[in-house]
Amino acid sequence: MSSTAHHPDGQPLRSDAERNRGRIIAAARTVFGRDGLGASMASVAREAGVGIATLFRHFPVKEDLVAAVFADRMDAYVTAVDEALDDTDPWGGFTGFIEAICAMQAADRGFADVLTMTFPAAEAFEARRAEAYQGFLELITRAKRSGHLRDDFASQDLILLLIANAGVVNFAGEFAPDTWRRFVALLIQSFQAPARGPLPDPPEDDALYQAMRRAGPAGPSTQERPGGD
Amino acid sequence: MSSTAHHPDGQPLRSDAERNRGRIIAAARTVFGRDGLGASMASVAREAGVGIATLFRHFPVKEDLVAAVFADRMDAYVTAVDEALDDTDPWGGFTGFIEAICAMQAADRGFADVLTMTFPAAEAFEARRAEAYQGFLELITRAKRSGHLRDDFASQDLILLLIANAGVVNFAGEFAPDTWRRFVALLIQSFQAPARGPLPDPPEDDALYQAMRRAGPAGPSTQERPGGD
Repeated sequence: MSSTAHHPDGQPLRSDAERNRGRIIAAARTVFGRDGLGASMASVAREAGVGIATLFRHFPVKEDLVAAVFADRMDAYVTAVDEALDDTDPWGGFTGFIEAICAMQAADRGFADVLTMTFPAAEAFEARRAEAYQGFLELITRAKRSGHLRDDFASQDLILLLIANAGVVNFAGEFAPDTWRRFVALLIQSFQAPARGPLPDPPEDDALYQAMRRAGPAGPSTQERPGGD
Repeated sequence: MSSTAHHPDGQPLRSDAERNRGRIIAAARTVFGRDGLGASMASVAREAGVGIATLFRHFPVKEDLVAAVFADRMDAYVTAVDEALDDTDPWGGFTGFIEAICAMQAADRGFADVLTMTFPAAEAFEARRAEAYQGFLELITRAKRSGHLRDDFASQDLILLLIANAGVVNFAGEFAPDTWRRFVALLIQSFQAPARGPLPDPPEDDALYQAMRRAGPAGPSTQERPGGD
């Protein structure tokens, strides 16, 4: 028998605050998964069965809630990069990583959006993303050096792919859930060396960052505050 | 001097109803162009300076309004197919058509969405779309026969491209307005024969149609009725 204090129902004792926090995160996972990250804080509070004031006490800005909900997915994202870097075949590692993260997008509509947004207020979350991105840059370098990835592939092309695939996943939904596989296969073939022709320049990193900020919950269109919902 | 009756300000006399209709369409063009087709009927009424009841008297369902706003774009879409069919180079016609419609998406966010939706209630509008689609099937046949388009290209791949490009256009917006050019160039290269590898099967036409219906204003998530806004 453990010495931890238990409720009569066998659960360890937890404060109301802890219980509410867990309930909110679980509810947000459901709501974001179903409706995307555009879902309102009010609908998360309703799903959790807590008041909106309680929700905002735990998560003053939506970014905090998003980061709490998707922390494990972001960890899986970093793991996918690490595994790809362990692949002794640079092209196999590169394409395997792309397929893995696109599969993650297909499995979770909310996470599909998270990958195309940025949450500056959620610093630890963004640090993990930056870590994955550094690994991806290394995957690019290795795949180019192996001669299998076109020389003019740019890191920005990953963002384009994630944006595009989020659109395909959200559109096809349960009607044609495997559509993304064909779409991503086409794009991977387009990345393959030798290039079949020149490409227009990629967008500037800074421009994409601004677009990711706007797309996220800190952006103007989905900004929410207590009472504003 | 014309014999048409004029207002003192020189405009031809028009009934209030006609004036309101024109004002609503112009307002909807502005609102859809700015906020996408998810914009509410109420926001169109506000922009037009008419009551919501007046708006619904002219356009009982949102599909009618969308069709009225985008009739000229849909005509341009059909024209783009016709011009591509006139091209003596089948591959040039095929790729030129894709670039033309993706440019139309980039120039008008609302139309970018229209191309990935369907509006069953707007029959004349949908007939034009069907006409363009028939032309596109002919473009595919010719481009394959010329040996430049991969044999396993499916008409459904056009829908995937339009969905994906709508996502890229909406995401990059004014921050990186030319991003779509690189993205579309990559996809066109992936369509080129010979294929670099096999592809997973395309989604069924019927599944894509259902997804287009859901995405449109007749779909469940954006359905609006007077009083529901």
